[in-house]
Amino acid sequence: MIKIELLRIDSTGKKNIEDVVCEETPLTIYLEEKELLTLLCSPHDLKELCIGFLYSSRLIKSLDDIKNIIIDRQNWNANIELNKKMGNNKLMFKRLYTSGCGKGTVFYNALDCIHKIKITSDARISSEKIVALMDCFQASSLGFKETGGVHSAALSSGDDILVFKEDIGRHNALDKVIGEALVKNLNMKDSIILTSGRISSEIISKAESARASFLISRSAPTDQAIKLAKELNLTLIGFVRGKRMNVYTANERVT
Amino acid sequence: MIKIELLRIDSTGKKNIEDVVCEETPLTIYLEEKELLTLLCSPHDLKELCIGFLYSSRLIKSLDDIKNIIIDRQNWNANIELNKKMGNNKLMFKRLYTSGCGKGTVFYNALDCIHKIKITSDARISSEKIVALMDCFQASSLGFKETGGVHSAALSSGDDILVFKEDIGRHNALDKVIGEALVKNLNMKDSIILTSGRISSEIISKAESARASFLISRSAPTDQAIKLAKELNLTLIGFVRGKRMNVYTANERVT
Repeated sequence: MIKIELLRIDSTGKKNIEDVVCEETPLTIYLEEKELLTLLCSPHDLKELCIGFLYSSRLIKSLDDIKNIIIDRQNWNANIELNKKMGNNKLMFKRLYTSGCGKGTVFYNALDCIHKIKITSDARISSEKIVALMDCFQASSLGFKETGGVHSAALSSGDDILVFKEDIGRHNALDKVIGEALVKNLNMKDSIILTSGRISSEIISKAESARASFLISRSAPTDQAIKLAKELNLTLIGFVRGKRMNVYTANERVT
Repeated sequence: MIKIELLRIDSTGKKNIEDVVCEETPLTIYLEEKELLTLLCSPHDLKELCIGFLYSSRLIKSLDDIKNIIIDRQNWNANIELNKKMGNNKLMFKRLYTSGCGKGTVFYNALDCIHKIKITSDARISSEKIVALMDCFQASSLGFKETGGVHSAALSSGDDILVFKEDIGRHNALDKVIGEALVKNLNMKDSIILTSGRISSEIISKAESARASFLISRSAPTDQAIKLAKELNLTLIGFVRGKRMNVYTANERVT
């Protein structure tokens, strides 16, 4: 958070005030000395962001695939070495480069990498628990309260919130959560992912990479997100506000 | 908008209901037969999206640079031919591919393309007018009201809203506005751009491509957006809610 001066206009008139806004940093990721991409992100938890991003983009299979990550906060670079060289796997780079992301999207072709293995988990959660988790999630979001400009994401076992992260990008926030879960060796299988943001197909793709059984948001999903969640048998819950919620898919898991 | 069935849970219990969600489509843009990128977008106003995207990414200088756009709604491709061949301008492609966007961002290097010519406009707007424009802007947003899942953007002369567009991506919504303004040959210089979304540096970059003097949002800006707006002498106004607003830069234009 950074302090700035601004002109506040309201019904009482104009005044110069100090306020806080969130920081935005371009982080350029180099994988095996090749420039992969630049993320616009909040400048904290950058190692977790890199790890989560590589994992949810299916560029690594586990933390063991990473030999070294050096974050250069002078030039805002992340230099990542892998244990298993990607070698001539130019296809992967090509896919990433050419079909890349877009505006407001992660690499679209990450979606092609989804194995679409149906989630068979018999985990259950009550609607009361969902309400309580969302309350706790929102209470944790200091950045939003202070700046109104960040998204948040979290990992929960169903009882507690295990990891909570914020970022100016909703994708980044979730990647930071996944990255930290990998670093801390937390079990993500059958877990619950919470997000403050809208749910498009890439968010489902990231939740699938974590092998979560539940994806819960206070915002809206798109039609493609619902379609993909259905194929994966992932329980997708949106618009959790107060005691109200919409369960879009695999609703047998909500008791 | 697409109708879906879902399980609604609220304080009165559970019931199966019908609701609408917004559509998400991957549109792959081919420029001179080369795949440029895939945008996840709402499947309407796709020509305007392509034109606005190329323009705000500084890939074209005017609508005259485009010879032909064919939107293939079967395969969700846009095939664009230019009048002036890009030829061996591989640098541009390389920049786009390699420094591409990221999660929640447009091509970051578009920012490098900003000329950073200071806006010298002596256009003025009253805070009452800003409140009235934002009221009108929000009243126009049918998509948000129905699905809660779309962003909107608009172009205004100060009196009326000239162009209004919606998309699941905040960048796309603004590109659609810019695209339609180009098609209709509307004057964007010294205009007002309104957006429902948060303002990061790429949104400023797009407003600059349109040569707007005002950028108005009901959401928060990042520190980099404020810094860039200051350099450009663009009037950046955020958190317009009710009669309240924050003027971050070039506040002499707000009377």
